[in-house]
Amino acid sequence: MAAGRRGRTRRRELRDGGGETPTRAVDYTNLVTPFPVMKAFSDDRIEAIHEAALDLLETQGMKILLPEARQFFRQAGARIDEDSQMVRIGRDIIAAALATAPRRVTMRAGAPTRDVVLELGRLVFQPGGGTPHATDRLRGRRPGLGRDFREAVQLTEHFDVFHMFSALLEPQDIDLTLRHYFMIEAQLTLSDKVPFVYARGRPQVLDSFEMVRDFRGLSDDDFRAEPWSSTVINTNSPRTIDIPMAQGLIDFAQHGQLSIITPFTLMGAMAPITVAGAMVLSHAEALAAIALAQLARPGAPVVYGTFTSNVDMKSGSPAFGTPEQFTASLAAGQLARHIGLPLRNASGSAANIADAQGANETQFALWGNLLAGTTIVIHAAGWLEGGLTLSYEKLVTDTEVLQMVAELCTATPAGDADLARDALAEVDPGGHFFAAAHTMARYRTQFYTPLVGDWTNHGTWEENGALTATERATGIWEGILAANRHPDLDPARVAALHAFIAKRTAEGGAPPES
Amino acid sequence: MAAGRRGRTRRRELRDGGGETPTRAVDYTNLVTPFPVMKAFSDDRIEAIHEAALDLLETQGMKILLPEARQFFRQAGARIDEDSQMVRIGRDIIAAALATAPRRVTMRAGAPTRDVVLELGRLVFQPGGGTPHATDRLRGRRPGLGRDFREAVQLTEHFDVFHMFSALLEPQDIDLTLRHYFMIEAQLTLSDKVPFVYARGRPQVLDSFEMVRDFRGLSDDDFRAEPWSSTVINTNSPRTIDIPMAQGLIDFAQHGQLSIITPFTLMGAMAPITVAGAMVLSHAEALAAIALAQLARPGAPVVYGTFTSNVDMKSGSPAFGTPEQFTASLAAGQLARHIGLPLRNASGSAANIADAQGANETQFALWGNLLAGTTIVIHAAGWLEGGLTLSYEKLVTDTEVLQMVAELCTATPAGDADLARDALAEVDPGGHFFAAAHTMARYRTQFYTPLVGDWTNHGTWEENGALTATERATGIWEGILAANRHPDLDPARVAALHAFIAKRTAEGGAPPES
Repeated sequence: MAAGRRGRTRRRELRDGGGETPTRAVDYTNLVTPFPVMKAFSDDRIEAIHEAALDLLETQGMKILLPEARQFFRQAGARIDEDSQMVRIGRDIIAAALATAPRRVTMRAGAPTRDVVLELGRLVFQPGGGTPHATDRLRGRRPGLGRDFREAVQLTEHFDVFHMFSALLEPQDIDLTLRHYFMIEAQLTLSDKVPFVYARGRPQVLDSFEMVRDFRGLSDDDFRAEPWSSTVINTNSPRTIDIPMAQGLIDFAQHGQLSIITPFTLMGAMAPITVAGAMVLSHAEALAAIALAQLARPGAPVVYGTFTSNVDMKSGSPAFGTPEQFTASLAAGQLARHIGLPLRNASGSAANIADAQGANETQFALWGNLLAGTTIVIHAAGWLEGGLTLSYEKLVTDTEVLQMVAELCTATPAGDADLARDALAEVDPGGHFFAAAHTMARYRTQFYTPLVGDWTNHGTWEENGALTATERATGIWEGILAANRHPDLDPARVAALHAFIAKRTAEGGAPPES
Repeated sequence: MAAGRRGRTRRRELRDGGGETPTRAVDYTNLVTPFPVMKAFSDDRIEAIHEAALDLLETQGMKILLPEARQFFRQAGARIDEDSQMVRIGRDIIAAALATAPRRVTMRAGAPTRDVVLELGRLVFQPGGGTPHATDRLRGRRPGLGRDFREAVQLTEHFDVFHMFSALLEPQDIDLTLRHYFMIEAQLTLSDKVPFVYARGRPQVLDSFEMVRDFRGLSDDDFRAEPWSSTVINTNSPRTIDIPMAQGLIDFAQHGQLSIITPFTLMGAMAPITVAGAMVLSHAEALAAIALAQLARPGAPVVYGTFTSNVDMKSGSPAFGTPEQFTASLAAGQLARHIGLPLRNASGSAANIADAQGANETQFALWGNLLAGTTIVIHAAGWLEGGLTLSYEKLVTDTEVLQMVAELCTATPAGDADLARDALAEVDPGGHFFAAAHTMARYRTQFYTPLVGDWTNHGTWEENGALTATERATGIWEGILAANRHPDLDPARVAALHAFIAKRTAEGGAPPES
């Protein structure tokens, strides 16, 4: 926080509802973390985890289902057992990969102001992603629909504190062979933020790249030169990389697009029950996937990620926002700094509804991410039921917290004028500062204006309907969707995009790999 | 976190609801903070704030309404204007006070296991305090009653993560001349934690000290030798110390009891609108009050405190859990380290009901406290409406967060066995760790067991009534109150306490000072 960011451009103005328009300029883009890092383990135990991961890769290896991926490893000198598909990866291969993986990646968006720098020390938020269901107070919980996906895109576009897209929710009413057209089209035409592309096999990925490339007006070389899209690569823990994930790693690398590599290691289930053991597995799997990307194209943009939480050992239910997830996040931060790569971590909640549990779990996990020095916090808003549902109301209430965190990324001035010596001399005991010149000069712009927080007194709150924050959040997302804002679009590119989709749809689309 | 606390005694066992009784030993007492400190301002600006506060005390001074208090300052060389009651306090007086104020205070409880050490680096939680109202889902929002106060005492006693009492809620049905008997009696007979004593003037304070002293079986000298009770001293910002507060500072100091000194400085209202300016005022007022305590008895136990948040500049409503409160907390942490005293900071919420806003504000403020290196976090649970109401349900949902924070105070082991090399070799790709020997040896004790968090899937949750966390919290506090546990009491001391109260009541009690 002491690191000054005072001078930077402030772009967006908040207006209050009154007749006046006091304006407060805020800028929630390009956040630099002000938070100190916290360690889960001593540095020597982080080194031990790193070494144990390297040993695991060398002696036990990874099961890699895609022959093409095994071939990359074979050429690099790994020991391959084609019958079992096991690939034993020497530490020299990992060291070479870590030498070529870039420490800093600039994601290119539809507008330069939406570009996102990924490196340790930056702070990037993504809303909850990958949920099969959607829920809101008006329409209830339902399987995600195309309509819901488009709405989630618009909500993501609306809040500056979301810097990149996650997968959001699954539009299950759209055929799987056509779904990628739908999802990319919505992101490109409803937002100028960096789109998310699912790695569901080469045909869909190449379709998606073509759509992004042409919509951004890029040559193929220009597209490949910088990352204009990102995907998430989940290993299948323990120690498996399946065909679509391996293809994704190769395709994104060869096209210069970003792979956010994220083992999903639930302690006690798909990973050892201890934080340290789970991190050995998560780290090993991430390193193997990073290696594949770097073998496919040295210098390919990758983010080192983890998503390590625990399960209820009685039911097997996954839990999020727990002390164990917090500690695992910290350990991942230490490992990311050990290898020097930007880090993706996750917030989240196992709550079934947008309530105090959901708020507390998501914010608790968020602080674990922030104190880990996380670069990208995914599932930072709206994620319920351990990822089964995206809640519109929770997205709003969680966004309040993200905006408050973003406020902390701007240094609070403490110059001589801020010390208020004159005002302190001017206001006598028994007086107040409301009318002080020092106050009058600053009152319109000094404080954060809440998004959904209600600071009225109890009587006024009751007169206004005694609504919970979750109830008030409904009107907020409704208002955003009703405004139905779009970025400025080039009609010719939109037409070309739609023509491409029509053509590919007529050709039968592209089936996912499995 | 790396600072090992593995070896310590673990006292309390959590049991799950099943037929087995897997036990997990936890110990939420004697917490040492694992959190790194965060700075609001550069060290030189903290020094500037400190100097500005000293200048303010020297040149503008404090209005101190109690003649006896002015006399202490006069004897120390301060410049007194008896007509205006203004006391101009030289920096030499402050320096002398800071030289005698102890850096470490051990609060003595009814049982040695409940003793509390106060110094920088420790972490102590208190529930919300000082609220005129109480609320719960069964009985609604009402003026606080004696019944409610006793219930709040029992809830505070129940959770080990509350280390000391706050003022809790105001039992408004008890006459003010007798209320201190009621409040002290409830704390002493329903709990063995350190009681809170209101500083509402000398007669009540001396009554209260006598009750605590005799109930603990102490001689007067033994009582005065160590702090067995605490109070909160609020200055009247800006720059006033009223009669009951000044008496409290003197009486608590002379009896060796703890004053937690806390200016309540709302930026833009009773304090300058800037964080830096508000901290100048808060710091000055705290230093003046510390000086009075030290003049009354050098070495008197004090805690340096602040409660600095902002107001809605349109309505004047106070706000809590804001970015500005967070930053002020950090600045207070820096000032506390500058003078070397234990720090009291506050969480809180302006929400009107135990909802997501309330959860988010309280946790956000909590993290500001934690990263400030705060010793005592007051209003850590249950505090609504900016302190007008104590919510039983919010007390439970907030306590979940405190317990999770307390879990982080115990180092997570990362020894060789925790790295799980054997389990990682044992479980093949496609397998799981549920049945691994490494898991079986640990599954009963590895993870935090939630208090009110529900990790069941959506179907089970619906079958169980689709309750929010706030709704589930009702059953939890009901269960605690139904159990109606008491500490082991000496019947003779209870009888003597009641006899004292009966005698003093017959004599008319003790009116508060104003």
